[in-house]
Amino acid sequence: MPERRKPRTLGALLYDGFELLDLYGPLEMFGTLGPERVRIVTVAEHRGPVASSQGPQTVAEHAFDDCPRLDLVLVPGGVGTLAALTNEPLLAFLRERAATAKRTMSVCSGSAILARAGLLEGRRATSNKIFFRLASAQSDGVVWEEAARWVVDGPFVTSSGVSAGTDMALAVIADLHGPAFAEYVAVLTEYTWHRDAAHDPYAASLDRPPTPPG
Amino acid sequence: MPERRKPRTLGALLYDGFELLDLYGPLEMFGTLGPERVRIVTVAEHRGPVASSQGPQTVAEHAFDDCPRLDLVLVPGGVGTLAALTNEPLLAFLRERAATAKRTMSVCSGSAILARAGLLEGRRATSNKIFFRLASAQSDGVVWEEAARWVVDGPFVTSSGVSAGTDMALAVIADLHGPAFAEYVAVLTEYTWHRDAAHDPYAASLDRPPTPPG
Repeated sequence: MPERRKPRTLGALLYDGFELLDLYGPLEMFGTLGPERVRIVTVAEHRGPVASSQGPQTVAEHAFDDCPRLDLVLVPGGVGTLAALTNEPLLAFLRERAATAKRTMSVCSGSAILARAGLLEGRRATSNKIFFRLASAQSDGVVWEEAARWVVDGPFVTSSGVSAGTDMALAVIADLHGPAFAEYVAVLTEYTWHRDAAHDPYAASLDRPPTPPG
Repeated sequence: MPERRKPRTLGALLYDGFELLDLYGPLEMFGTLGPERVRIVTVAEHRGPVASSQGPQTVAEHAFDDCPRLDLVLVPGGVGTLAALTNEPLLAFLRERAATAKRTMSVCSGSAILARAGLLEGRRATSNKIFFRLASAQSDGVVWEEAARWVVDGPFVTSSGVSAGTDMALAVIADLHGPAFAEYVAVLTEYTWHRDAAHDPYAASLDRPPTPPG
């Protein structure tokens, strides 16, 4: 696979209450390709700090209206998904950018947002186990796959919960840059990549969320 | 294991050029315990945005001199480690806080910083494969373990590269909160936890860093 000369721009969507690893697992993997291959930008409704589900804040460099053209779009999940589902400017941004992006990716409950935006109609998709019904309730026009680490359908790639996003990111890297690049990134980051999109060890916890011990 | 009534405070150290997943893998796991168990704060030499190795910026809520008491300290690695090694205020902060913290954890080249601060003298420790010699060059008084996913020695827990920090975090959660809590967090985040600290699938890449394909 010959190397592409121009870097792709990956837009990481931020909203209040995004889940940390949904965002940063994929960004670690794409970021390790180097800025000569993938340039990462952060974008939210408004510029400035955006608080994650776990507390720490990430800076949005761009607002929706000054965001550069995106080749790749990353939509994390998290407890903030509920509010994001009714955020019209956010849904409109995703519709507009997904139309021209080479890949639009979601992690965890991020697929609920893509479904609400109408972007997954007629496509196969997955979501995380704990909020699966939240995702599937957004559209009957989506073929929701309950047991999948991630699902590829055209330019849309949706992953299961949190950690699954990291495996999905490596699969997208393998697809766009070649498998040797995905291997390179996995070894550099000492990450044991789960290569099988259909192998979902957490399918059994669907509708049976674990409860805190004690 | 009876539940502790008061939450522990985890201080995540930020410096320019920190590695994203070094920080956010562990923060996802500790954060999933909930603020009633672990409260996360971010701290850097100065308050405000701190740029990661991959670009995205995280906000430091506290400067060294206004940081609350820390029960847990997390030191990421990254390309910024080189500059951090000669940052005296940063080294002094770590010496001061490690003295009273229940656990001081490092990921990747973060152990080079702990070694430079003199905190690992007489102890066993590990680091990531690519920068292992950078870590071991910081002190002859440390027993550097070349093949380890993570190493526990007293209150210090050092992990190997990037992704290893997530496994280390779950081990520390198991130790402090009980194994059932670590399992709970792993299932919620759909994370396949590598439980064996001695199993290091990346030991073979020591001193033989992978090179980009093509």
